[in-house]
Amino acid sequence: MQIGIYPGSFDPITNGHLDIIERASRLCDKVIVAVLKNTNKNPMFTLEERVALIEEVVAPFENVIVECFSGLLVDYAKQHNAKVIIKGLRAVSDFEYEFQMALMNRKLSPDVETIFLMTSSKNSYLSSSIVKEVAKFGGCIEGLVPQNIKEAILKKI
Amino acid sequence: MQIGIYPGSFDPITNGHLDIIERASRLCDKVIVAVLKNTNKNPMFTLEERVALIEEVVAPFENVIVECFSGLLVDYAKQHNAKVIIKGLRAVSDFEYEFQMALMNRKLSPDVETIFLMTSSKNSYLSSSIVKEVAKFGGCIEGLVPQNIKEAILKKI
Amino acid sequence: MQIGIYPGSFDPITNGHLDIIERASRLCDKVIVAVLKNTNKNPMFTLEERVALIEEVVAPFENVIVECFSGLLVDYAKQHNAKVIIKGLRAVSDFEYEFQMALMNRKLSPDVETIFLMTSSKNSYLSSSIVKEVAKFGGCIEGLVPQNIKEAILKKI
Amino acid sequence: MQIGIYPGSFDPITNGHLDIIERASRLCDKVIVAVLKNTNKNPMFTLEERVALIEEVVAPFENVIVECFSGLLVDYAKQHNAKVIIKGLRAVSDFEYEFQMALMNRKLSPDVETIFLMTSSKNSYLSSSIVKEVAKFGGCIEGLVPQNIKEAILKKI
Amino acid sequence: MQIGIYPGSFDPITNGHLDIIERASRLCDKVIVAVLKNTNKNPMFTLEERVALIEEVVAPFENVIVECFSGLLVDYAKQHNAKVIIKGLRAVSDFEYEFQMALMNRKLSPDVETIFLMTSSKNSYLSSSIVKEVAKFGGCIEGLVPQNIKEAILKKI
Amino acid sequence: MQIGIYPGSFDPITNGHLDIIERASRLCDKVIVAVLKNTNKNPMFTLEERVALIEEVVAPFENVIVECFSGLLVDYAKQHNAKVIIKGLRAVSDFEYEFQMALMNRKLSPDVETIFLMTSSKNSYLSSSIVKEVAKFGGCIEGLVPQNIKEAILKKI
Repeated sequence: MQIGIYPGSFDPITNGHLDIIERASRLCDKVIVAVLKNTNKNPMFTLEERVALIEEVVAPFENVIVECFSGLLVDYAKQHNAKVIIKGLRAVSDFEYEFQMALMNRKLSPDVETIFLMTSSKNSYLSSSIVKEVAKFGGCIEGLVPQNIKEAILKKI
Repeated sequence: MQIGIYPGSFDPITNGHLDIIERASRLCDKVIVAVLKNTNKNPMFTLEERVALIEEVVAPFENVIVECFSGLLVDYAKQHNAKVIIKGLRAVSDFEYEFQMALMNRKLSPDVETIFLMTSSKNSYLSSSIVKEVAKFGGCIEGLVPQNIKEAILKKI
Repeated sequence: MQIGIYPGSFDPITNGHLDIIERASRLCDKVIVAVLKNTNKNPMFTLEERVALIEEVVAPFENVIVECFSGLLVDYAKQHNAKVIIKGLRAVSDFEYEFQMALMNRKLSPDVETIFLMTSSKNSYLSSSIVKEVAKFGGCIEGLVPQNIKEAILKKI
Repeated sequence: MQIGIYPGSFDPITNGHLDIIERASRLCDKVIVAVLKNTNKNPMFTLEERVALIEEVVAPFENVIVECFSGLLVDYAKQHNAKVIIKGLRAVSDFEYEFQMALMNRKLSPDVETIFLMTSSKNSYLSSSIVKEVAKFGGCIEGLVPQNIKEAILKKI
Repeated sequence: MQIGIYPGSFDPITNGHLDIIERASRLCDKVIVAVLKNTNKNPMFTLEERVALIEEVVAPFENVIVECFSGLLVDYAKQHNAKVIIKGLRAVSDFEYEFQMALMNRKLSPDVETIFLMTSSKNSYLSSSIVKEVAKFGGCIEGLVPQNIKEAILKKI
Repeated sequence: MQIGIYPGSFDPITNGHLDIIERASRLCDKVIVAVLKNTNKNPMFTLEERVALIEEVVAPFENVIVECFSGLLVDYAKQHNAKVIIKGLRAVSDFEYEFQMALMNRKLSPDVETIFLMTSSKNSYLSSSIVKEVAKFGGCIEGLVPQNIKEAILKKI
């Protein structure tokens, strides 16, 4: 498993995402965290901010890089010679949606394999949107996101 | 279980909600129906209308009061010295979402417990939004909402 | 089972929908593909375009007709003397939502029965929205939709 | 939909089964309740008893007959010229198992279609085994099974 | 909520059960841990052993007692004047089965309410049977069960 | 990802298992198909037969070997210096059970990672037990299992 791609919006990255990145970095020679240029939503952080924040977070992992992408994930994978798409499954999860995406990606590109990793059970309730909502109402997000993300969120609010 | 909080948008309250309130009123010394000041959605009823309508509906229950709230639910619970959050689970349900919220609330405030009650199976398909949609197209909503709510909906349409 | 109604947005029709129509046409004397006048969404195809495209696709089935409808599905069924609503279930599916709708429809009109058919497993990941997203980013949609739909989508993009 | 087969162990038949039979009898020209010669389990009622009890229950439905069968369901369907297998889905249900069986049956015999009907929500918690367990411990099974079944169960215990 | 009953086989009690008992003891005036006289299974611990072990574990909770029971749970509840049945839901769980049981219990005794509590996410993978299996093969069960249970299991193997 | 273990009963191996093995062989340097010495069940094939049959099936894959194992999977993984456990998820699946096992294995051995691969949707209804049941009743199992397995099953029956 030489190159793995871990795609997402990461608006912002949470400890749940970081957990998956750490696991993936032990499985793959190289992990590309691929930040989606999502034009539909109204993000808290710009694409550039998200990339910069994740780069700080993944600095300790030598084989992890951060990029942004748009278009089809499988096309992006091919351009980077990556054969593996990594997705995190939370015990409390979007299981069916991920399956649908993985089946479609396999149809579009049969030689790219999607593998599912489990987040730690202590992160099973985490998502970017719930973290933002908690922060917006003044709730404590310590332990939900890395320290730099916490500060960046508080600055935004 | 002295004080329980039953939060929701209640736009409008349905017989499914009422079923849960009745069960909760038998379990708790006092039940606070907490109507969410939801700024994101385009509600059918204003916050004040929703509170007033629910007050009519819960009048027979001596230990039930209605309030509105914004911000974090656990903060609201603390302010009211409530240790219990009450959530209804429908057989046809948003189970995973409720779990995620309950786990987050526990993280934010470990001493507030979320308890899940089951709606009666005859209400398992009810939700505020499906009631509004049925009413909008002239369908009969008798038996889905309390009588005053039915009249209020018909007036709005 | 004389007359069955197969409702949906069909924006556009996919091979998954077509699979269900074919199965339904073998079960029912007559199948009405009922295209929903959906005012909320921003569709890729107008109601008229959707009806015309489906008519091309279902031409080989002698007992299948296409219409558009608005309002309550059960009212529409009654007007057409139809006693059966047909819904497709994907292995990867919106199972709970369909159940909720079916229970509500039964409440509104107890003599109209909803029956669920399974799409072929090779279509289990198909939906109109995922097809549009793939097409938008230049992915190959061959085999996901009928030929005329493929051309119509490419023309729109 | 000329001939439909409703297979099961029916040890014993419950009001949930009866609900499905009634719905099926309105959809099909003829319904065969097919009682499975299940050699693995230790049944409360013999195959003959089960057939006899169901025959009493379905007597009011002119187009419903009761038979027993063993072997592959699709072979049995072919022998009876039946093109439809009827399965009940409970809101609280064995959904995935039924899907697996339906997909396998389709593979074995593509021209036999499985259709799923929903039991009434008031029966969503019913199963033969839970009824037997309740009866065994002296619980009231009124309203869970037809009257003759209730008497037969009490006689067995 | 004066008296709550927490039923189960508890063969043996795990930290997941203990977590629920602790939560229940804060909600109820009195909690009865009701150990099921399960005649069907081949238990690791006798009923008497299970009761004795749980009594050691719950000694710190002043309002928790341990009993064994057979027959219908709702009858047992009535005999003890308990209006509440407590069930734990694991994120990884037997959700549908618990719903079925709760609906049946409500039918049998409408004035006994089932409430669902969530185990801590760190216990979401725990069950008595998986603990026994791990122990049988020499795996470390530290942190999965209370200390006295760990010793009792090791003695049995 | 040097060494991956794919555990199971494989009584017998199906095309669904084979699909996962093929995918795993492209991801890992070496794949060990680990056949469980399952003492509880009454298998169709002995452990030795199962190993021999799988060896025939996986002969085309140079980096796949077959072994049998008993005891804890994570211990077996450590003995073979394997850091990856491979599990197949079917769209129609035992998702929750697999999650529970994976979480327990992570607790027992945090440095062994479980990764989930998806079987092809055309295999989503396959399991060893359903194949055996179909074969027992004379159904065609062509396309469900490899050719040598088909012959071995027919010989057993």
